[in-house]
Amino acid sequence: MNGNIMNKNELILAGIESPADVQDLSLEALKTLSDEIRETIIRTVAQRGGHLASSLGVVELTVALLKIFSPPKDRIVFDVGHQAYAYKILTGRRDAFSTLRTKGGISGFPKREESPYDFFDVGHAGNAISVAAGLAQARCFNGDDHKVIAVVGDGSLTCGVSYEGLNQAGAAEKDLIIILNDNEMSISPNVGAMAAYLNRIMTGQIVTRFRAEVKNILKNVMGEPIYSLAKQFEDALKGFITPGKLFEDLGFKYVGPIDGHQVKHLVETFKNIKRFREPVLVHAITCKGKGYCQAEQNPSRFHGVGPFDIETGKVHSQPRPPSYTTVFGKALVKLASKDPKIVAITAAMEYGTGLAEFARLFPRRFFDVGIAEQHGIVFAAGLASEGYHPVVAIYSTFIQRGYDHLIHDVCMQNFPVVFAMDRAGIVGEDGPTHHGAFDIAFARSIPNLTVMAPADEDQLSDMLATALTLNSPVSIRYARADGLGVPIKKEPELIPVGKGRMMTEGEDLLIIAIGSMVDPAVQAADLLAKKGISAGVLDARFIKPLDEDLILEKSRAAGKVLVVEEGILAGGFGSAILELFSDKGLGGGSAVRMGISDAFVEHGTRAELLADLGLTPEGISAQAVSMLKDRPESKLRRFSSIRL
Amino acid sequence: MNGNIMNKNELILAGIESPADVQDLSLEALKTLSDEIRETIIRTVAQRGGHLASSLGVVELTVALLKIFSPPKDRIVFDVGHQAYAYKILTGRRDAFSTLRTKGGISGFPKREESPYDFFDVGHAGNAISVAAGLAQARCFNGDDHKVIAVVGDGSLTCGVSYEGLNQAGAAEKDLIIILNDNEMSISPNVGAMAAYLNRIMTGQIVTRFRAEVKNILKNVMGEPIYSLAKQFEDALKGFITPGKLFEDLGFKYVGPIDGHQVKHLVETFKNIKRFREPVLVHAITCKGKGYCQAEQNPSRFHGVGPFDIETGKVHSQPRPPSYTTVFGKALVKLASKDPKIVAITAAMEYGTGLAEFARLFPRRFFDVGIAEQHGIVFAAGLASEGYHPVVAIYSTFIQRGYDHLIHDVCMQNFPVVFAMDRAGIVGEDGPTHHGAFDIAFARSIPNLTVMAPADEDQLSDMLATALTLNSPVSIRYARADGLGVPIKKEPELIPVGKGRMMTEGEDLLIIAIGSMVDPAVQAADLLAKKGISAGVLDARFIKPLDEDLILEKSRAAGKVLVVEEGILAGGFGSAILELFSDKGLGGGSAVRMGISDAFVEHGTRAELLADLGLTPEGISAQAVSMLKDRPESKLRRFSSIRL
Repeated sequence: MNGNIMNKNELILAGIESPADVQDLSLEALKTLSDEIRETIIRTVAQRGGHLASSLGVVELTVALLKIFSPPKDRIVFDVGHQAYAYKILTGRRDAFSTLRTKGGISGFPKREESPYDFFDVGHAGNAISVAAGLAQARCFNGDDHKVIAVVGDGSLTCGVSYEGLNQAGAAEKDLIIILNDNEMSISPNVGAMAAYLNRIMTGQIVTRFRAEVKNILKNVMGEPIYSLAKQFEDALKGFITPGKLFEDLGFKYVGPIDGHQVKHLVETFKNIKRFREPVLVHAITCKGKGYCQAEQNPSRFHGVGPFDIETGKVHSQPRPPSYTTVFGKALVKLASKDPKIVAITAAMEYGTGLAEFARLFPRRFFDVGIAEQHGIVFAAGLASEGYHPVVAIYSTFIQRGYDHLIHDVCMQNFPVVFAMDRAGIVGEDGPTHHGAFDIAFARSIPNLTVMAPADEDQLSDMLATALTLNSPVSIRYARADGLGVPIKKEPELIPVGKGRMMTEGEDLLIIAIGSMVDPAVQAADLLAKKGISAGVLDARFIKPLDEDLILEKSRAAGKVLVVEEGILAGGFGSAILELFSDKGLGGGSAVRMGISDAFVEHGTRAELLADLGLTPEGISAQAVSMLKDRPESKLRRFSSIRL
Repeated sequence: MNGNIMNKNELILAGIESPADVQDLSLEALKTLSDEIRETIIRTVAQRGGHLASSLGVVELTVALLKIFSPPKDRIVFDVGHQAYAYKILTGRRDAFSTLRTKGGISGFPKREESPYDFFDVGHAGNAISVAAGLAQARCFNGDDHKVIAVVGDGSLTCGVSYEGLNQAGAAEKDLIIILNDNEMSISPNVGAMAAYLNRIMTGQIVTRFRAEVKNILKNVMGEPIYSLAKQFEDALKGFITPGKLFEDLGFKYVGPIDGHQVKHLVETFKNIKRFREPVLVHAITCKGKGYCQAEQNPSRFHGVGPFDIETGKVHSQPRPPSYTTVFGKALVKLASKDPKIVAITAAMEYGTGLAEFARLFPRRFFDVGIAEQHGIVFAAGLASEGYHPVVAIYSTFIQRGYDHLIHDVCMQNFPVVFAMDRAGIVGEDGPTHHGAFDIAFARSIPNLTVMAPADEDQLSDMLATALTLNSPVSIRYARADGLGVPIKKEPELIPVGKGRMMTEGEDLLIIAIGSMVDPAVQAADLLAKKGISAGVLDARFIKPLDEDLILEKSRAAGKVLVVEEGILAGGFGSAILELFSDKGLGGGSAVRMGISDAFVEHGTRAELLADLGLTPEGISAQAVSMLKDRPESKLRRFSSIRL
């Protein structure tokens, strides 16, 4: 499959305009179609980047689903959604698929706006069963008879909300199909009791053999009466005879395990379960990265991947400064080697959050809790209550899942848990479900929480060290980006809590920037200098507590203030500055605020999206120019300290 | 038990200063002690209000735990925490218990600050297993050998985070004990597949009988070889032989079901499991309200209850205006009777959120999803995606659990889900875990979400009607309080979105208030009038979108602005006003903001706590006076429209 994937003609796929065309195909043609889809996915992701491994794993499953079921009448919802590439290709988006994850192009996730075949926008794991329960309930209200199908990865079964959905859907006795796409791993190797259970099912040959044996004994050795007695107790016997008793206990008819790459087997199974009028769980075993050997061998690396060379599997890359993620991972390893109380926790993002090295060096102090952000945070709080210093490495968008626990289990008790909040701000191609837009706004409203954001990778290292000296909760937010290439000090320096710093001084205007926006602000000041405008740049470093003295002093001196953050404006960092101005009676305490305005940001490259938001040196400088141009006379005015 | 509970002498309880004293008692004495504790709880809650039914259900369980285990060496964590009254009484807080839930007195929940016997502050359901996993991990790091015990109600098993905890704890193979306190209901009758499963266990006599039968057949009829064969397959047989296979599949040794009111049985069981070195789940069946017949018969009403008469069970009450909760429930029923697309969803709070009448009248359109806020919100989104209009009635503090789903599943797709956010602001005696301090701040930062707060109960009715005409998500926040006693219009009036109103006009100062703070602001204006100060009061009605024109016009005219909200200040409503002033270039756009400052608010009556925060007519008026007094000269100044 490796060498020639660019050369094959996609003869069958070329004829597929909608799922109806799939239904006409023979089993043999479905197999060929699967190969063609796989080639299309590999070719496209090699060019565009994307979620390769999981998409390749569900090709036959998707083909078989569309052979038997008929969206948009039947509703198919994909959990997480990055399994949906084959589905997109087969539901009218074959040609558009080449624009995958590009600005204005096809989204990497299901999207209602994009197609009538997409029923729900998804990006975070675990919601599909609950969505399906809602769709099934609506069908019931409407008296319709279509099918509702949730395709759920085994990784999502570590998610609490999946279980909440199962709990209701199983009890509702509504016609609802869950396809459990079990590839024995989510993004990081799957963890927990459920994973062990699924594993036992798969390796459950011993049970199957015993089942046959018992059946024989009951029927042949002991005779029909005993066999009948046993049948009366079928429910009790099920744990004995079928491997999926756990799901049956939760109200689902269990079918499986079946081979998720055998189209024939899948089609037959789907045909059978289509008749059922109850909750069914089909347990399909798939291989992540199936059909592309580089991805099969290294599915974690090909979970979400940038453009790569198909032949070698190597990601295209130029030499670049280490990413914030990498710097965080290294800094944590260094600190942990000196402090045995430091433990690291991730929710299925060992690689994504840069913890792989930590996990290798300190396996006993590393915890991958699965896609279970809530549990991960409470578990951290439990450890902190006993004197440990947990670092929860988590994406900004995913900590939203644990928002209550951040407040209730960590901050309310003032536990020293450090949140290394990665992917804060614009993440780029993964789009609106994955941007980390809200963490500044929500974090700064929580008492006891210290909130920092580094301006460069060396400051990240300093901030992590600083955070671990505090005996209270801390959030450090940083972007999905490379560092600036600055040298990282051998020994991190502790930063005084709530102290900012001046990057450059200036007369005409003060730019207060935080985190990822400090460097663009400094560059903007350079651009402004060329126009004869002297702009000071203040790196706040702390969102909470603010460096009130420095901010007030420099703001008063400059008279005009521009605040720049990579986060939602409403309630964000700029808003904190306005609160300070107002609270301290800085008469005329207004500031122009730049950040993410009141809308969800679509997908595109990080650079494109930041440019759209004006969060670039050019954008910041243009804003500054317009502030000065608007009212040149006001250049002379200064903030008074008189409160209105 | 009814008549004479005040008269008995508490002879044994009087001698219990710490859990060590419990360990010396005979089984007979433990029984008497249980009765004495029960009396103390009933007597105290009758006076102070509190969580009666669940506390009465776990008396024997707590006594037996303390007979066998030894906190603070052994760690006992209570899920939700309102089961902990007996535990508090037995761990050095017997006398202080009379101050239950009063300001400065004993908290209604476990609290680290209160006692070394409390290991974790809890108020929200479902976190105990994750906490216990953290404590067990810390024990493992420390090389200690104490026991870690989580006492979990069956209601909490509908919680996703409980499952996330089970999933890890079961796989960790760590010594950890879960006591499942199964009272067959959480706050509302328990729901879902897990509840049905537990119910099957309890009524599982048929299984038990069959188990005995099969054992006999295997051993006696078929002989030793087959019996041995079977024993080799013990794992497979377990679902067949024990009722708790589901928990065993999740890695727990299952013990039960046992009678949770038989001290002897409990003590023996705990003695046995103390020897285990693996995760164990003890399934104890208890009766909510046990020993107080009024509560046994009506556990929902006695879940959380105000002061009541012990003899009759009647809650002390004066004639009062209907609460916002009641008004919401009635208004929704009225609207739903005309619009079949309206459905109502609660997370185990049918009574607390005022939905009981709706549930009775429209059982098919009413969904109690259990303590599963995440699922409830996604389920609502699923229904909305099919054209329904779900109203999620939820407490402000509990929607924190569904924060991610509010953003990702509802607002990102702009689905018309209405959040009736009850208990927003200060809730009173339940304290910091239950105050709804954050919802204004987090809601207003989410795109597409309209955020309202009614000033009185008639406005709540209007706002609900208005919200249901919008084709987008809405949050309506209202306090745990009685209405003002204003008449409710027969037909609700639609409120133009983003339009506030003037309550009173004034020259010297503008008070902008929202929701529960409008009436105190109007009263404050009256107080100010008596001092010769003329204050205008603007009822914003909308937190988002703001009535920009009205606010700017009146603010400019008044020159001095005081903003009052019952929510956290950082990023809150006042902050939105500052953003508006700044964005619109209102030079000198400062405002004094009143609300909840940067700290968690402790327990006490709502009136006491609001007074502490200054959120009373007197507090607001005092603040206004000081604003004018500070700088009398500035009375002459007016906001300019010049941008600095």
